[in-house]
Amino acid sequence: MSYTAPLKDMLFNMEHLARIDEVAKIPGFEDAGLETAQAVLEECARFNEGVVAPLNVPGDLAPSSLKDHVVTTTAGFKEAFKQYAEGGWQGLQHPADFGGQGLPKTIGAACGEILNSANLSFALCPLLTDGAIEALLTAGSDELKATYLEKMISGEWTGTMNLTEPQAGSDLALVRTKAEPQPDGTYKVFGTKIFITYGEHDMADNIVHLVLARVAGAPEGVKGISLFVVPKFLLKADGGLGERNDVYCVSIEHKMGIKASPTAVLQFGDHGGAVGYLVGEENRGLEYMFIMMNSARYAVGVQGIAVAERAYQHALAYAKERVQSRPVDGSVKGPATIIHHPDVRRMLMTMRALTEGSRAMASTAAAAYDAAHHHPDAEVRAQNQAFYEFMVPLVKGYSTEMSLEVTDLGVQVHGGMGFIEETGAAQYYRDAKILTIYEGTTAIQANDLVGRKTSRDGGAGAKAIAAQIEKTEQELLAAGNEDAKVMGERLGASRKAFLDAVDFIAAQAKADPNAAYSGSVPYLMLAGNLVAGWQLGRALLAAQGLQGKGADEAFLKGKIVTARFYADHILTRIPGQRDAIVHGAHSVTALAPEEF
Amino acid sequence: MSYTAPLKDMLFNMEHLARIDEVAKIPGFEDAGLETAQAVLEECARFNEGVVAPLNVPGDLAPSSLKDHVVTTTAGFKEAFKQYAEGGWQGLQHPADFGGQGLPKTIGAACGEILNSANLSFALCPLLTDGAIEALLTAGSDELKATYLEKMISGEWTGTMNLTEPQAGSDLALVRTKAEPQPDGTYKVFGTKIFITYGEHDMADNIVHLVLARVAGAPEGVKGISLFVVPKFLLKADGGLGERNDVYCVSIEHKMGIKASPTAVLQFGDHGGAVGYLVGEENRGLEYMFIMMNSARYAVGVQGIAVAERAYQHALAYAKERVQSRPVDGSVKGPATIIHHPDVRRMLMTMRALTEGSRAMASTAAAAYDAAHHHPDAEVRAQNQAFYEFMVPLVKGYSTEMSLEVTDLGVQVHGGMGFIEETGAAQYYRDAKILTIYEGTTAIQANDLVGRKTSRDGGAGAKAIAAQIEKTEQELLAAGNEDAKVMGERLGASRKAFLDAVDFIAAQAKADPNAAYSGSVPYLMLAGNLVAGWQLGRALLAAQGLQGKGADEAFLKGKIVTARFYADHILTRIPGQRDAIVHGAHSVTALAPEEF
Repeated sequence: MSYTAPLKDMLFNMEHLARIDEVAKIPGFEDAGLETAQAVLEECARFNEGVVAPLNVPGDLAPSSLKDHVVTTTAGFKEAFKQYAEGGWQGLQHPADFGGQGLPKTIGAACGEILNSANLSFALCPLLTDGAIEALLTAGSDELKATYLEKMISGEWTGTMNLTEPQAGSDLALVRTKAEPQPDGTYKVFGTKIFITYGEHDMADNIVHLVLARVAGAPEGVKGISLFVVPKFLLKADGGLGERNDVYCVSIEHKMGIKASPTAVLQFGDHGGAVGYLVGEENRGLEYMFIMMNSARYAVGVQGIAVAERAYQHALAYAKERVQSRPVDGSVKGPATIIHHPDVRRMLMTMRALTEGSRAMASTAAAAYDAAHHHPDAEVRAQNQAFYEFMVPLVKGYSTEMSLEVTDLGVQVHGGMGFIEETGAAQYYRDAKILTIYEGTTAIQANDLVGRKTSRDGGAGAKAIAAQIEKTEQELLAAGNEDAKVMGERLGASRKAFLDAVDFIAAQAKADPNAAYSGSVPYLMLAGNLVAGWQLGRALLAAQGLQGKGADEAFLKGKIVTARFYADHILTRIPGQRDAIVHGAHSVTALAPEEF
Repeated sequence: MSYTAPLKDMLFNMEHLARIDEVAKIPGFEDAGLETAQAVLEECARFNEGVVAPLNVPGDLAPSSLKDHVVTTTAGFKEAFKQYAEGGWQGLQHPADFGGQGLPKTIGAACGEILNSANLSFALCPLLTDGAIEALLTAGSDELKATYLEKMISGEWTGTMNLTEPQAGSDLALVRTKAEPQPDGTYKVFGTKIFITYGEHDMADNIVHLVLARVAGAPEGVKGISLFVVPKFLLKADGGLGERNDVYCVSIEHKMGIKASPTAVLQFGDHGGAVGYLVGEENRGLEYMFIMMNSARYAVGVQGIAVAERAYQHALAYAKERVQSRPVDGSVKGPATIIHHPDVRRMLMTMRALTEGSRAMASTAAAAYDAAHHHPDAEVRAQNQAFYEFMVPLVKGYSTEMSLEVTDLGVQVHGGMGFIEETGAAQYYRDAKILTIYEGTTAIQANDLVGRKTSRDGGAGAKAIAAQIEKTEQELLAAGNEDAKVMGERLGASRKAFLDAVDFIAAQAKADPNAAYSGSVPYLMLAGNLVAGWQLGRALLAAQGLQGKGADEAFLKGKIVTARFYADHILTRIPGQRDAIVHGAHSVTALAPEEF
């Protein structure tokens, strides 16, 4: 099943929602306007549609395999990654100082979606490498930067994140891997790390592991964790590859999905100790790791959008081809393609609305990131930083949860054929399920949203977003047409429900934390639904404004109908979520653990 | 992971919701009271927990395989099925005249749940056989009954349903398999059938295929379809197995789940014609097949409940064992088992509430079936038949859709471990997805609900159910306690939303069929949610009535909290569904097929 990147939608979002013209006013991004975006996206689409997407099914059928500590990836992956590197794609968002292209996230995130739609498993290798690059850029010494960054940004070497241990999944306080200081300033690292994505593979010459470990004598808990670079191959004085370091892959997991992506168990230090280099200062590892995680969380949210888009395209193609039964409205006499049946349209519209809504949200968040990091005005940076930080758990949590709904509907549109592996729809269903788990489960995103992003400032940041939404409502209500009016009204009801939830959570977070956190995931889903709907409300206004002016009318109609569908069918879920959060907290914990 | 049948919950439902004491007043069911139910269920649990459940994972790892037209099932399946047959389980609900036990569906459905929780793939063989038995009982000639029923009811032979063809999935009007009358009164059958569950296997001596085909010269469409018995082995005059019939398995599907269950492509008549025996009259095949389908639809709904229960037990065990992070309420200093975290409890309670609600609905529906078929009073039969017919799409559609949510949460509770196949949670997620598809997709159930069950009588049947629900609300509101009051209020709001939807659908079904059918699946989900909640409302009242009277207080508390949770978190979804149905119909079909 081929894939076609949704360039029109991406460029529409960049132009009208993310306001790439504003991004291009930021020093350093002067060349990163809409034209650049279009050129980059077209090239990105060409490469991924042609080279990466065709490897998606082969990767599922012939996953990575392990023999004698060596992981062999699916045939074709190595060559495709070489092309990916040569095309400069790994360096897209990274600084020109180290060989990158220095493009804004506003463009980079869209490229990330295309890559992930093409092949979720393949895309994980660059995704993790991006995170490792960001951590080194922020916290690495000049020497570490000089040693590693150029090779990583060029795609010659890849990066990994080593957090999880068997007893320490989400709870990094339990990390036991240890690092012993050596007289030469290096450390020797000992321990076992699990769930290491692309922890071992044959696609690059070296792998730069970023590893959380405890230095002997460090405080207990998360305040005693440090971050180390542990390369697979040590480097010679001339920077060339030297000795094999003492880190080995001892097994890879047998997973439900993303099978081509090797998930490694890494053993550090079984042969004398793996040589590690401290990143930044001792005991600040978690802080640095959060840099990687924040980058990765956003990127995993984009994975949700990506797999949803792919599932939608797959289902749509089937719905336009499969002939079954007569339409209820009599529009066709005799059997018709199933897209004529209202419920098939409902499923396709749901898939499309959730995907486009999440994409619009992610695009706006990306622009905020760019302003937060690069805008010359400190006040603008701070505002955008606050907005972006509120968005990260929504992009990660909502976009991935919605991808489960979308990939389920994708199978459902196919009927019995959807359950047969050869059809391909089932792979998206299996692949997507990891997205709500890794880089922090939905509950962990929701805890972040409830704790750091909502209750810590008494709901002020959340309410500032609500105020922005209210402005869009007013524009919609003033537009004088039914679609805009309905969207405005539904957004209004949804925003009020959001404020009820914010008030409840802000009030209860300390008074009755169980009550606040019992509604954490429903609150995340409510907020994500609202913000995605808000962006589609803005999109609706923009599309209506463009009608009759020579733009692509079919695209504009699709956007307006999709936004209206979102208002009718997705925003309507919000008041019930509010009721569950505000009135349903007690019944969540009314049974004590021992009463189950 | 072991499985323990939820006997307390099943017996509670039978006693207080299904009113098995009333069932036992029906002639023929005098011995089928609560004591019998308990004895049967305990024996059923013992057998399935011990023999069938341990084969669930092996069936996933080593599915059925095909070689030279012969399907070999997973090691152990054949022996387990022999024990199943010897235990009399295949005959549980079938008439004593043919060697069955003649128990009511009220008991049989619970046994079905236990079998399916133990092993969804294994259970499909008896499930399909049950359907074939019912079709023969209703429409078969005395000769066909005498020839086949005893062996099928004893479990020596199994049965299949042959509907689907490559071009005819849900649309049976497109069936092309043909049947040519022979001078001896038999027919020769030619054609290809796909998706035939247990269409070939090694667990029984003979397989009795029930096959839809067209007799030469029959009318076009569904009115020209006849039903035939096509046994794998023809019978000798003495009833013993004779020649191999001309029906062969040419391939089995590679599926996402229920892998142990062979899904066959059957080729009829490639070597001169498969001998078939007409069931009932020519051209009435679809009518007879609906008998099988109605039986099977209810049974597939029970499969949803079954896999949800199994996923719940699996997740609960993990949540009680896995230690991660400190509880937000400070109840434990340091890392605690994850069941202490509010969101894990929310997930477990959601799983439990959806499962118990669906089980309560199915149990009540089963009792209605028994009264509809066996009650001496024609008026009582008619009332119960109407109720049961309304319930079938809900039991099938709602229970299976909820099983997707539950099995997803089951993986989610496990975090990263859930995505690793060895953990076992992923299998439920993969297995469950077929349930919303086979025996009629959710959309087909919803069309049945909208068309035959709601709009045909102008909503009268639906409103009669709403009136019954209103009585329960009044009892709840009169109970004088918070849990009952909240449940009563939420049920009231939900019932009103249901009535809005019924009015809309009844009004639009002819005026604007696209509008009515655009909301068909949301309407099914709304109605299922309401009816399951209603049954939990009744359960809440019953449980409160039993408190302090020497019953199992822990069970009663669990039931009350679960019902309250359902009111707070599941019934609250209903008003939004109403809004989508009543106000959102237009946007579903606003984009024409060619505009996608």
